[in-house]
Amino acid sequence: MTSKVDVAIVGAGTAGLAALRDVRRKTDNFVIINKPPYGTTCARVGCMPSKTLIAAANAFHARTLLDTFGIRGAEHLKADIPAVLERVRWLRDDFVSGVLKATDDLGDRNIAGHARLDGANRVVVDDQVIEADRIILAPGSSPVVPKPWEKFSDRILTTDTLFEEQDLPSRIGVIGLGAIGVEMAQALSRLGIEVHGFDGSKQMAGISDEKIAKALHQSLAREFTVHLGVEVDLAEADNGVEIRWGEKKVVVDKVLVAVGRRQNVQDLGLETLSVPLDDKGMPEVDPQTMRIGNTSVFLAGDANGMRPLLHEGSDDGHIAGVNATSGTPVKLERRTPMSITFCTPEVASVGKRASDLDLEDCLVGEVDFSSQGRARVMQKNEGLLRIFASREDGSLLGTEMAAPAAEHLAHLLALAIDQNLTVHDLLRIPFYHPTLEEGLRSALREIARELPPCGISDLAGCAALEVEALE
Amino acid sequence: MTSKVDVAIVGAGTAGLAALRDVRRKTDNFVIINKPPYGTTCARVGCMPSKTLIAAANAFHARTLLDTFGIRGAEHLKADIPAVLERVRWLRDDFVSGVLKATDDLGDRNIAGHARLDGANRVVVDDQVIEADRIILAPGSSPVVPKPWEKFSDRILTTDTLFEEQDLPSRIGVIGLGAIGVEMAQALSRLGIEVHGFDGSKQMAGISDEKIAKALHQSLAREFTVHLGVEVDLAEADNGVEIRWGEKKVVVDKVLVAVGRRQNVQDLGLETLSVPLDDKGMPEVDPQTMRIGNTSVFLAGDANGMRPLLHEGSDDGHIAGVNATSGTPVKLERRTPMSITFCTPEVASVGKRASDLDLEDCLVGEVDFSSQGRARVMQKNEGLLRIFASREDGSLLGTEMAAPAAEHLAHLLALAIDQNLTVHDLLRIPFYHPTLEEGLRSALREIARELPPCGISDLAGCAALEVEALE
Repeated sequence: MTSKVDVAIVGAGTAGLAALRDVRRKTDNFVIINKPPYGTTCARVGCMPSKTLIAAANAFHARTLLDTFGIRGAEHLKADIPAVLERVRWLRDDFVSGVLKATDDLGDRNIAGHARLDGANRVVVDDQVIEADRIILAPGSSPVVPKPWEKFSDRILTTDTLFEEQDLPSRIGVIGLGAIGVEMAQALSRLGIEVHGFDGSKQMAGISDEKIAKALHQSLAREFTVHLGVEVDLAEADNGVEIRWGEKKVVVDKVLVAVGRRQNVQDLGLETLSVPLDDKGMPEVDPQTMRIGNTSVFLAGDANGMRPLLHEGSDDGHIAGVNATSGTPVKLERRTPMSITFCTPEVASVGKRASDLDLEDCLVGEVDFSSQGRARVMQKNEGLLRIFASREDGSLLGTEMAAPAAEHLAHLLALAIDQNLTVHDLLRIPFYHPTLEEGLRSALREIARELPPCGISDLAGCAALEVEALE
Repeated sequence: MTSKVDVAIVGAGTAGLAALRDVRRKTDNFVIINKPPYGTTCARVGCMPSKTLIAAANAFHARTLLDTFGIRGAEHLKADIPAVLERVRWLRDDFVSGVLKATDDLGDRNIAGHARLDGANRVVVDDQVIEADRIILAPGSSPVVPKPWEKFSDRILTTDTLFEEQDLPSRIGVIGLGAIGVEMAQALSRLGIEVHGFDGSKQMAGISDEKIAKALHQSLAREFTVHLGVEVDLAEADNGVEIRWGEKKVVVDKVLVAVGRRQNVQDLGLETLSVPLDDKGMPEVDPQTMRIGNTSVFLAGDANGMRPLLHEGSDDGHIAGVNATSGTPVKLERRTPMSITFCTPEVASVGKRASDLDLEDCLVGEVDFSSQGRARVMQKNEGLLRIFASREDGSLLGTEMAAPAAEHLAHLLALAIDQNLTVHDLLRIPFYHPTLEEGLRSALREIARELPPCGISDLAGCAALEVEALE
């Protein structure tokens, strides 16, 4: 059976659905093909269930501060792990059901199955052949489990399986301490599970700034054991699995493998496009058009390996959707880079990271939240924030932080950076008292002191100073 | 004894100390006169102890969500009120001690006593007469207790006395539901005290937008009784004091009076300045110079009755300090207006409020946090946010909200408003997933849909769209 469409979308995840929205504005003649299950990575196994688990874990962990506040009886609190997981799934199902609505009304334009390219204008799904003017590929990504570890079968967890567990054992190893590993290691630990975390690199949660990395390490190591810069292997053990590193070992009940995600491009037929593929089988994609080389095929979302974050995947899909249906395809400007890890203290980076810059050439402002007023009031007094600015004009370049409310401070700094503002511009806003934003102001003022004076007062900003003689 | 100085500062609170910093940069020949106690209103009896009490109350209140999260045993938690208050005072004392350092090293340039003007260049403190080229008045404000209620003596609390209590009774009335009244009523209620709140107006916490006011009312009324638009009176009762309104009455153990603060200008000698005073005895003050009329006297901080907020008082002091020591006095631009009430959901307004605008002439975007993703995950799913924008060009005019993390959303919007940005400009930033900022984005998009399309995509912004043909 052969059909002919304007656009074929492969994948009904975040990027595919974003593309779908734009495609539907221009044409009814499309198909969207998805290999079940339906529901985005984010809603099914990513952001939403993880943040729900973290919320429960933080609610339980808050008992450790109660006595300080003057609240008694915290020792009676118990985490009912099966109930915690049940709430995670209940909310997860609700978020997934919201996502499913996007393809509900599509009838036979929604095809369940594995799609494979056959050249730049043809997709094959089982016995169906679809000729398409444009093809948007958004097949997503999957957690990697090293082949030799597969034999430990149900002692191995990934984010695909973790939230399906009915209960959790008392000892869990977490291998890989990127964003997902750190979030889950801390959440599991806060639920009362003995957690051992490992990473081959020296820094966690994608932090590149050494001081921020150290601050985060100190905070997390108070909650679970953290082993950085180690190569681990697994071995059989009585009643568990043994994690080995160097001369050391520890036995745990299960291991959460969070060593990364693999783009789902293995059986996608990219080799039929007659474009160069790199050693991982990946073609070159223009991030401003999502187009693969000079073809009529677009590669969006986690599957292109460029920015595996929801808002970027959604932008990818949008850009692909616009360009796959546009007479005049366009290059769209990408957003200011931002990433957040929802651990405590929260980790965030915006704009340029320390590793993108020569810090010797920058002005760096810093605030330590251990002595910040509002942070102390709320007993959230840990964490460090650093801001990088141009030595020439004080323009804001980027920030890294492991700090309370980092997710909020990050959005504020994203706006400042997106608007090419300077430290002086940002100091113009009211910083309310007592807020964590006042900590950010301390860091900004540290930079401002290194810059030539800008007018008489930060009330005036550099351009706006209104001077009028009084007498 | 007569001395002669360049500048005399009256009041060592937030505004006076801010002025001191600027004065010290220019001259050593100054005095600062303060009627004890030392320590700012904020640190002693305002922002800091109130936020500390709120933090404890919220920590205890969080038990009501534990069961939903799957955490058991919440029924065993008890608020140890004396311990809660002890922590409030302990942290309060620490914040106050930080403030005291500002005047520690001043020797006899720091005078404890009540200062009274004698004309525009003379201050009298007990038997000391100080001739001053410039005088900065920053005597602060005090809680108002209506005269007839004074007879209830220790059954009456104000924020001056609340934090000094060793314990709290089981029934408290809160009269006045402005920012302070709402914060304290909710905190006391969350600590397990039966709270009855009253206000003569129809809206709480300074909200002017009717929908936001209603959303806050609904949230707060779930926690304590709220009586709006009522005039109350007090009467003697067995074991307590009776609050009467209309035909109704309730007996409580104590009453927190939060009906406002009075500027401390009664015995300040303003009448010796030969400038017009209004019926409250207040002179006209230029908010951009803090100068009283054409005199050499400045009136800064809560005492001028203009913007009784810490950051504004601090700016007042700074402006007065700059101008009292400057050869060329200047008018400084004030910051974008912002106010925050730290209740739950948090209340905030930035820029123009609903009452400043004709909303029929504006575009209004709205988000209800009861169904917002991240808010649901954290069980913070209540509240409403409204953004007001120009119908002509989508520029952001202001916002009011009663919403989770309002303090953070307010700072982001303050930057956007301060920079005269449009809805499209703000939609350019990354909105991370899942965050409460995505709720803000929903409100922005609601406005954007009413505006003429701005380029092909919010990725591009209105000015920055980069178009390049692909093929």
